[in-house]
Amino acid sequence: MTATDVSRLLAQYQKQINERLAFYFDKKIEEASRISNYTREVVANAKEYTLRGGKRLRPIFCIYGYKCLSDTNSEAIIEAAISLELMQSSLLVHDDIMDEDELRRGKQTFHIVCKAMCERQFGKNKSHRFGENIAIVAGDLLEAYGEEVLAKSSFKSEYVKKALAKYAEIVKNVGYGQILDITAERKGSFTEDEILMIHKLKTASYTIEGPLHIGALLAGAKEADLQILSDYGIPLGLAFQIQDDILGLFGSEEKMGKPVGSDIREGKKTLLILHALERCTEDEKEFIAKALGNERVTVEEIDAVRDIVRKTGSLDYSKKLVGEMTDKAVQAIKPSDFRTEAKDSLINIADFIGNREY
Amino acid sequence: MTATDVSRLLAQYQKQINERLAFYFDKKIEEASRISNYTREVVANAKEYTLRGGKRLRPIFCIYGYKCLSDTNSEAIIEAAISLELMQSSLLVHDDIMDEDELRRGKQTFHIVCKAMCERQFGKNKSHRFGENIAIVAGDLLEAYGEEVLAKSSFKSEYVKKALAKYAEIVKNVGYGQILDITAERKGSFTEDEILMIHKLKTASYTIEGPLHIGALLAGAKEADLQILSDYGIPLGLAFQIQDDILGLFGSEEKMGKPVGSDIREGKKTLLILHALERCTEDEKEFIAKALGNERVTVEEIDAVRDIVRKTGSLDYSKKLVGEMTDKAVQAIKPSDFRTEAKDSLINIADFIGNREY
Repeated sequence: MTATDVSRLLAQYQKQINERLAFYFDKKIEEASRISNYTREVVANAKEYTLRGGKRLRPIFCIYGYKCLSDTNSEAIIEAAISLELMQSSLLVHDDIMDEDELRRGKQTFHIVCKAMCERQFGKNKSHRFGENIAIVAGDLLEAYGEEVLAKSSFKSEYVKKALAKYAEIVKNVGYGQILDITAERKGSFTEDEILMIHKLKTASYTIEGPLHIGALLAGAKEADLQILSDYGIPLGLAFQIQDDILGLFGSEEKMGKPVGSDIREGKKTLLILHALERCTEDEKEFIAKALGNERVTVEEIDAVRDIVRKTGSLDYSKKLVGEMTDKAVQAIKPSDFRTEAKDSLINIADFIGNREY
Repeated sequence: MTATDVSRLLAQYQKQINERLAFYFDKKIEEASRISNYTREVVANAKEYTLRGGKRLRPIFCIYGYKCLSDTNSEAIIEAAISLELMQSSLLVHDDIMDEDELRRGKQTFHIVCKAMCERQFGKNKSHRFGENIAIVAGDLLEAYGEEVLAKSSFKSEYVKKALAKYAEIVKNVGYGQILDITAERKGSFTEDEILMIHKLKTASYTIEGPLHIGALLAGAKEADLQILSDYGIPLGLAFQIQDDILGLFGSEEKMGKPVGSDIREGKKTLLILHALERCTEDEKEFIAKALGNERVTVEEIDAVRDIVRKTGSLDYSKKLVGEMTDKAVQAIKPSDFRTEAKDSLINIADFIGNREY
């Protein structure tokens, strides 16, 4: 399977997932419209927010987790998998409030959309608070939607019960990771252990391992199956995150869809930067510290940071780590007796993630 | 059963529920402490916030919903019932942010506690945002805790699945009700239909009917059982809310634990006030409008509002409504073939709620 084949496979699933999501949201808009025009409008905004983009990696991993063990109910697993996208939407809505971001996927964040709704209908006074408040509730609502989808799915009750416990565990892990992130950010310094812990809680568990487990549990997975999926998902999650950090500094604006160097502007503490900081001169250290989180950082300054990251060997080190982790993931799943089609796809997706450019 | 007997019964359950909650939180504090000191501190704050008070009505209704149909697993149902208190805590933490309240049950609200944590450890800069952010995450975390407790409970998987769908439905209803509340508040006017809809979504479903259903579902309830519990829970929920409104204006500070007239100060739109506004003179209407939401309203002005509410017959009307709704609830459950002990207790609790002074 070439990278193009994997892209095509993923695109196919993305399309199916988006159709299901749209269908689900339309039912929810109808439900909300029976209450009031305002609830209808908020849910319609949640639909637009959720459908405006995203790679749908979480539902795709959920589907493949299921397909590792079973292929009997391929419609129902797509329906159940959208629960992960609803969870994701819930967390992003809340994240955008916390980060005071105004843009998400090139459009207004949810609280800014609701702020505008307030200004249009009720005036400007305290419209920002209004926007944030509606967004807090909408995040809670989306989380309940995700839970509902899973709780009402047609799989064996015993399996659904376990999948829901896992769903709660993922939300919990992301919460712990987020607390660690907020406090470490505020403290102003991160250790490598802290960054790795945040990656583990916020990315590895949430993006890959957790969704794989939910899918597998819906197919009746045993402990040994889950262990293999963890051995695949955790290193791959780490690889995914490090690749994300590399792209955040070196990626092409065209492919990423966001300005280059935005990780620098946002002051994101990454393993890439941390590794460079430990190996550069005092002057360079000072230079990086000034660039990080500086909203008016220039293209030249970003280029200079890139040079330091290259020169200290941090780029190579990180690329090597991505390769090793991806390889570790592939080796973990290869000898398993999972269904061949799903296993092959997961191996290809791992390679794809390790080499992705967006 | 006298009112004192009911009080004693409720107090007994409150004690058991609080013990379970404390035990559960201690396990979570341990879990969080394995991640970092910060996560440990946030979860410890969540424990204190949850245990500092509350009538525990929701878990108690959940326990009685179960006892209507079964009495075989009385330990497990108490454990499962704490999920409702975790949900409540989650919603209150988020509510306090939205209302910008600084006090909850006589102590600092969660985001203010976290703001103080920030100032102690990291300084005053943007400490309010920090406090709100941690509180948003903590609310999400508490919601996940509630889900986890239910998903891991030891009842039949088939029953747990249904209970979890109901749990999600309750959170969803509260969300819709909250959106309606925020927008109507902002619009500046409420119709009776809107107030009743908010009560239905935020109180009747959430405080009484929903918890009863969760308990009953865990005992394997059929549709007909749930219908009886709805016929009991919805009118009783309405009675509970109207009684709350009456106490909010006429209750004794000593028994309520909060300053009299605080509903006036907060500008809470209640059926009691709406009914009076429709029946008083233009001058009185203007007077009430000025007092509502006025933070510096005097005791004399609150007394004058009380007089208008009395004079227009709104107090009597509301009391009558409480009586009728309570009666309706009792009549709905009386002829059922629910277990006698539970049925009698629910009847007594209904009378207690209709006559409560706090």
